[in-house]
Amino acid sequence: MNQQVKLAARPVGMVQKTDFSFETADQPTARDGEVLIETIYVSLDPAMRGWMNDSRSYIKPVQIGEVFRAGTAGRVVASQHPGFQVGDHVTGSWGVQQFAVSNGKDLIKVDTQVAPLATYLATLGMPGMTAYFGLLNTGQPQPGETVVVSGAAGAVGSVVGQIAKIKGCRVVGIAGGQDKCEYCVSELGFDACVDYKNGDLRKQLKAACPDGIDVYFDNVGGDILDVVLGQIKFKSRIVVCGAISQYNNDTPVKGPSNYLSLLVNRARMEGIVVFDNAAHYSEAAVQMAQWIDQGTLASKVHVVEGIENFYETLMMLFTGKNFGKLLLKVDHS
Amino acid sequence: MNQQVKLAARPVGMVQKTDFSFETADQPTARDGEVLIETIYVSLDPAMRGWMNDSRSYIKPVQIGEVFRAGTAGRVVASQHPGFQVGDHVTGSWGVQQFAVSNGKDLIKVDTQVAPLATYLATLGMPGMTAYFGLLNTGQPQPGETVVVSGAAGAVGSVVGQIAKIKGCRVVGIAGGQDKCEYCVSELGFDACVDYKNGDLRKQLKAACPDGIDVYFDNVGGDILDVVLGQIKFKSRIVVCGAISQYNNDTPVKGPSNYLSLLVNRARMEGIVVFDNAAHYSEAAVQMAQWIDQGTLASKVHVVEGIENFYETLMMLFTGKNFGKLLLKVDHS
Repeated sequence: MNQQVKLAARPVGMVQKTDFSFETADQPTARDGEVLIETIYVSLDPAMRGWMNDSRSYIKPVQIGEVFRAGTAGRVVASQHPGFQVGDHVTGSWGVQQFAVSNGKDLIKVDTQVAPLATYLATLGMPGMTAYFGLLNTGQPQPGETVVVSGAAGAVGSVVGQIAKIKGCRVVGIAGGQDKCEYCVSELGFDACVDYKNGDLRKQLKAACPDGIDVYFDNVGGDILDVVLGQIKFKSRIVVCGAISQYNNDTPVKGPSNYLSLLVNRARMEGIVVFDNAAHYSEAAVQMAQWIDQGTLASKVHVVEGIENFYETLMMLFTGKNFGKLLLKVDHS
Repeated sequence: MNQQVKLAARPVGMVQKTDFSFETADQPTARDGEVLIETIYVSLDPAMRGWMNDSRSYIKPVQIGEVFRAGTAGRVVASQHPGFQVGDHVTGSWGVQQFAVSNGKDLIKVDTQVAPLATYLATLGMPGMTAYFGLLNTGQPQPGETVVVSGAAGAVGSVVGQIAKIKGCRVVGIAGGQDKCEYCVSELGFDACVDYKNGDLRKQLKAACPDGIDVYFDNVGGDILDVVLGQIKFKSRIVVCGAISQYNNDTPVKGPSNYLSLLVNRARMEGIVVFDNAAHYSEAAVQMAQWIDQGTLASKVHVVEGIENFYETLMMLFTGKNFGKLLLKVDHS
């Protein structure tokens, strides 16, 4: 049998469990030219919230009744395709289900001798690519500059901060909770990390960035974006990667009240979507695998077991309860 | 005697007449190396509102008791400076007063045979330079693209739109009132102009920009910025020049609720300040004088007489009552 999670309703405000349906289908079979994949990991990402809305975006919304879109990693369990053998590990985007059939076009074969499978959904997957291209192409950090990243302990933020360190920047994270902040400084090598849940963010950030902020990589939006806008420098760059604080609003998104700081500082705010860089993913993966190998790029994964826990696990993203790249382990191996 | 307008108090919310004091000083005299200038025109600009606030900005605030800062044009009435003769016309920033003494360093001699004196405070002055560099360097319009400008009939907006036409763009203005909109289309050659005071701006703008917006030059901020953000295209550019709708708020600035459209569209929002281009003003002036001469760059000035009307004239900017570059005529010639 094939357990699947489908979109059942479009949420208004916070996602509800009833916005998904948990169904069981027959296990599919691979026909000529196809492979059957067993899912090992489902990636849980803040972007999923956007895919639930029926609005114009960078990707079409998931339709009601459709298996819910997700980045996935698994193993080939049957193959009628000359390019894949049983036992091959692959990544793709076949959604929240235990099994899927593919013609192979959207699958990437990955080598679990080079890196653990989970890493291909984390640093070597979409979050890592988002960090790499967003920071380097759009943030354009220069040695000696101060780079601030929110969601600092998360899948994207942790990579942003470490790459900025590799590029010779002073790096300050913003994260929720002392454990996450300590991790950023002690294990990831950030120069400082500010706990937005504890004390006056404006003052703490000012203390951590006494010369102001050159690059801000924003994963959260909301009040934190406004605080940062108040401390940016001349010709600074703000990378708009996400706004997790705003995704479950049932009121309009909070626009950055301090946006005129862009004028005062001749600064730039620019949006990114990782897919635009698809032609360059492999170069980035080679570079990041090298940094991982050298020990300069660490990562943490947070694995929850059981496809039946999909909803509760997704909610961890929006309450800040995950610590590291959040994955759902679907197979029972 | 020398009538002067000084800053008397820092406004909270809308500017009050009592925020200025109207004083009479002795007429100053030029000493060795100095010139005495009689003011002819005082330029009235939205940026003045910002100069009244005691906050970090791109220029230091005007101090309480100081002659209020303004762009100015006048004639030399006495000279002890080898570089200036009585009768020379000059522009500078000597503030809202009838007479001023200068060592000449901050004065620009202008030729009223080439263009009327008022033009040196309009298209060939700060508003024109703001339009020229903001549009070309930051907006980077390409032939065939759709350029939208707010405050379209104003000193900056009217120049933005005409330069965009010269560069081969489709140009759509946003202005307040049918007369301003008609002027933009009939006299300035815009392809369309939308009256934000009349009807549904979103629908009207959509009709005027059926393919979306590539460049938005924003002078107004507020709700209009949000409507435009909802209609921008992939890789579009928003030039943040000002936000006149927000300058007199006694509540926080309205941040753009639709700013995540920057992400969806991989678009950029960037602030500009004209002073950064000072090294290139003369090139721009030569180019714009040529366009004026060729009849492709028109402008309108709106002159109010009498330094005693400074406050009421300034207020016209914030109520949209001016039509063209707003100047106060100070001399009695």
